[in-house]
Amino acid sequence: MFGCLVAGRLVQAAPQQVAEDKFVFDLPDYENINHVVVFMLGTIPFPDGMGGSVYFCYPDQTGMAVWQLLGFVTNEKPSAIFKISGLKSGKGSQHPFGAMNLPQTPTVAQIGISVELLENLAQQTPVASAAVSSVDSFTEAQMTPNPSEAFIPANVVLKWYENFQRRLTQNPLFWKT
Amino acid sequence: MFGCLVAGRLVQAAPQQVAEDKFVFDLPDYENINHVVVFMLGTIPFPDGMGGSVYFCYPDQTGMAVWQLLGFVTNEKPSAIFKISGLKSGKGSQHPFGAMNLPQTPTVAQIGISVELLENLAQQTPVASAAVSSVDSFTEAQMTPNPSEAFIPANVVLKWYENFQRRLTQNPLFWKT
Repeated sequence: MFGCLVAGRLVQAAPQQVAEDKFVFDLPDYENINHVVVFMLGTIPFPDGMGGSVYFCYPDQTGMAVWQLLGFVTNEKPSAIFKISGLKSGKGSQHPFGAMNLPQTPTVAQIGISVELLENLAQQTPVASAAVSSVDSFTEAQMTPNPSEAFIPANVVLKWYENFQRRLTQNPLFWKT
Repeated sequence: MFGCLVAGRLVQAAPQQVAEDKFVFDLPDYENINHVVVFMLGTIPFPDGMGGSVYFCYPDQTGMAVWQLLGFVTNEKPSAIFKISGLKSGKGSQHPFGAMNLPQTPTVAQIGISVELLENLAQQTPVASAAVSSVDSFTEAQMTPNPSEAFIPANVVLKWYENFQRRLTQNPLFWKT
């Protein structure tokens, strides 16, 4: 029913079903994850009047699971991108996975999806920093610490320099052409 | 082999194969799209030494197709999130879909994936504003600098270039000394 994709990695389409209405994806090496995409596979829709709340769960310093509400997927909006890289030090929120006691490994986080009534979802407030819907603030904040300043990876300059050197060796006046 | 997901919509997993090594997804109502996720389904990897360049194609005011290189997917980095909302007024770039003459509808854009040699991909430069998320992408590296990678402010390079140019004007062989 659900898929989960960490940007840069292979897609996952087989969550662990931990209850009739609860699904969990493992996110190994979660400290190196910035964005997670959660989506419905398109095979089975939610039952009428229902949707999914999407949670991020990670172990705190004592190994306890901290849950944060990222947002929702519904039949009308069957996919969403979430930014989780800013959440790792945030506070936990209420969540419906309480009794499940998922095993916590220090480097593995989880995405949990809980199927609930749409009217319940409407009363839940996701953590603000996870939303990737608002276009303008999002990428600008990400681009550079100072939006008016651009940065170039050093190896790009190095590669250019090596090319330049090579061409100069072949023809000391190549740059004049 | 590939999937494509517009944030908020259903996933697409059946691109149109327009050539042996070229795949195209339609993006209806593209003016309301902010982010697109392109990923390998995990069923068939790229052949050894090959990867995919990912293009965004949209109709300009005259209905002509404008292509822009968004980035790449490879066996090592099988998914990527791209921001396309800033590209709609940009210039087109070189692309390998030239002869295909895809039908252009005013509200429909395309994602095109071209399977190519990795060494060809390494020579292509995506439009800067499309990079979003994956760990080794340009923008993200700026956010969380990788200890093994150094970054140089662009104006330092520019200043160096201006110096170099000035000295070259004064003495075309200054660099030999």
